[in-house]
Amino acid sequence: MSRTIPRDNVFFAFSPSLRAVAEIEQGEEVLLHTHDCFEGQIQKTTDLVDALDWGHVNPATGPLYIQGVKAGDVLRIDLLDIQVGEQSSMVTIPGEGALGDVISVMETAILKREGDQVVFKDKIRVPTRPMIGVIGVAPAEGEVPTGAPGAHGGNMDCTLIAAGSRVYFTAGVDGALFGAGDLHAAMGDGEIVVCGAETPGAVRFTAQVVEMKDLPTPFVETGDLVATIYSAPTLDEAASGAIHRMAQFLTGFARMPLNDAGMLMSLVGQLKFCQVVDPLKTVRFEFPKTVLAEYGYQMP
Amino acid sequence: MSRTIPRDNVFFAFSPSLRAVAEIEQGEEVLLHTHDCFEGQIQKTTDLVDALDWGHVNPATGPLYIQGVKAGDVLRIDLLDIQVGEQSSMVTIPGEGALGDVISVMETAILKREGDQVVFKDKIRVPTRPMIGVIGVAPAEGEVPTGAPGAHGGNMDCTLIAAGSRVYFTAGVDGALFGAGDLHAAMGDGEIVVCGAETPGAVRFTAQVVEMKDLPTPFVETGDLVATIYSAPTLDEAASGAIHRMAQFLTGFARMPLNDAGMLMSLVGQLKFCQVVDPLKTVRFEFPKTVLAEYGYQMP
Repeated sequence: MSRTIPRDNVFFAFSPSLRAVAEIEQGEEVLLHTHDCFEGQIQKTTDLVDALDWGHVNPATGPLYIQGVKAGDVLRIDLLDIQVGEQSSMVTIPGEGALGDVISVMETAILKREGDQVVFKDKIRVPTRPMIGVIGVAPAEGEVPTGAPGAHGGNMDCTLIAAGSRVYFTAGVDGALFGAGDLHAAMGDGEIVVCGAETPGAVRFTAQVVEMKDLPTPFVETGDLVATIYSAPTLDEAASGAIHRMAQFLTGFARMPLNDAGMLMSLVGQLKFCQVVDPLKTVRFEFPKTVLAEYGYQMP
Repeated sequence: MSRTIPRDNVFFAFSPSLRAVAEIEQGEEVLLHTHDCFEGQIQKTTDLVDALDWGHVNPATGPLYIQGVKAGDVLRIDLLDIQVGEQSSMVTIPGEGALGDVISVMETAILKREGDQVVFKDKIRVPTRPMIGVIGVAPAEGEVPTGAPGAHGGNMDCTLIAAGSRVYFTAGVDGALFGAGDLHAAMGDGEIVVCGAETPGAVRFTAQVVEMKDLPTPFVETGDLVATIYSAPTLDEAASGAIHRMAQFLTGFARMPLNDAGMLMSLVGQLKFCQVVDPLKTVRFEFPKTVLAEYGYQMP
C-alpha cells in the first residue's frame, strides 16, 4: 500500500524556503503523481507553444519533507515504478534547442500510447522507456528554477533515472524538501529539441538516508552501473565535472589506485550526454558495478 | 582470398602529397596489417611513455590508392573483420587526458588477450570489442597528423567503427589515399586517459565509391543505425556539428520534414561522445535505421 501524493501542489523553483506539502517517513512507499512539463496546457496538435503560460512550465510535485533527514545527509531515492499517461506531446520551438537556428515553424505532435509503445504521427512506434526529467532536493540557499539542473538535481533529463534505479542527492536542508516531475515516456540522450515524449504520470519510490558521506551527488545506480552527473555552462566543463567526480568515487569509495581508476574509466567507462539544450548542459559518466566488485566494493 | 598489405609502410600525417604504397581495386578484399599506436615501442610494464619516440606514435598503414576514385567522390569502406593482437597496452601520461590534472605517475599496463576477453592487471576481464582509432583519407590540401580527427576522418576514436560497420568518407584527392591504424581491443566512449587497449592487428575491408553526393562525412552505418561524426575544438561545437549534420542527412537523404527530423532526433536519436582528449574533440549522433525505413529510405 502506497502513500499517495496528488499533483495539486506543485512548485517551480527548488528552494529552502518552500513549505512542504506533506511529510513522509524514510522507507515508506510513496506514489507521487505528476503533471507533464506543460502542466497539461498542450493536449492537441493545435495547442502551440506560443500560447503557453510559461509560468506553468516544469511543475514539480511537492515538496515533501522526509522525516529524520538532516542537512548534509546523503539521501537515496529508490525508484520502484514509473507510470506514464495515455498520451504525450512533443513540440518544436523556433530559436530553442540544438536545432533552434534552423527550426522556424512551431509544431505540436501528440503521441498516443499503445501498450508499451508510443506512436509518433501514427507512423513511428517507439518503445516506452519512462524516465524522470526533474527530480531533486532544495539547495542549502538560493532558489533554482525547476527547469534548471544543478548540484541539487533538478532538470537533469538523465535517461538512467528510470524504474529500478536509485538516485542519490545531498540534502541541502533538514527534511530535504524533495520533489519530481517532467516525466518522459521516451527520450534520446541529448534531448535535441528540448523535449522528450512529455507525459503526466506517477512515480512510486522510497526515500532513505544512507551512510555515504562525500558521495559526489547527484549520483545514480542501476542494476549494472553507477553514474556521476554534472551540469555546467559548457559541455567541456560538464564532461570534466562528471569525469572527475567518477574518479573521486572510484578512488574514495572503491579504493582504486588513481591510475587504475583512470585506465579502467578509459577502457570500460562511458561518458554520456544527458541534455545539451538548457543554459547548463548535463553530462554523466557510467562505470560498471562488476568492476567495482573486483576491487571488493559493493554499493550499500 | 584477400590482398594483403603489410605494416612496413606507415605514415604520420594524412596529406595529398603522400605517395601510395599500393593500388587496390574497388570491391577487392584487402587485409591491412597495423601497428599499435606506439608502433610497438611499449611491450612491458617497464616501457613508460617518457621513453617513447613520439615521432613514431599513431602510425597508419598505407596510404592506398583506390582505383577509379575521383576527388569529391563518396567512398564507402566496408569493415569485414578486425583482428587484434595477443596483448595490448594502456598508459597514464601525467598532464594529458581528461584526468591529466590529477594523474601524476606514469604507468604502463599490459593486457593479455584470453579468447574474446582482455585481462587488465590479471584481475579485470573485459570483452574484446575491436575498433579502429585512426581511419581516413587524404584531405584536398594541407596535412593532418594521424593523431588528429577531422573532416577527412583520422583519429576519431569512434567505438562504432568496428567489424560489420561501413564508414563513409569524401575523397579529397583522386585515389583517396586511404589508411588506417591505432586499433583498440576495447575502449569506452570518451577515451579518458587518451588510450583504449592499444593493440596491433589487421583490418579486412573493401572500398567502393557510392552515389551519395553531399553525404555529411565522416558517416558510419551499422546494422541498426546511421551516425554522423564531427570534431571541433570544444565539445559544444562538436555536438552541434554532429547534430546539424544528422538533421541535414535526415532532411536531405531520408526526405524527412525538418520538424519530424528534430522531434525524432530528440525522441530516438542518441548524441554520444567519441573522444574528449585530443585538441579537437569528437562527437557522434546516432539515429535508428528502422525510422529511416518508415520514411521510405534505405541506405544504398
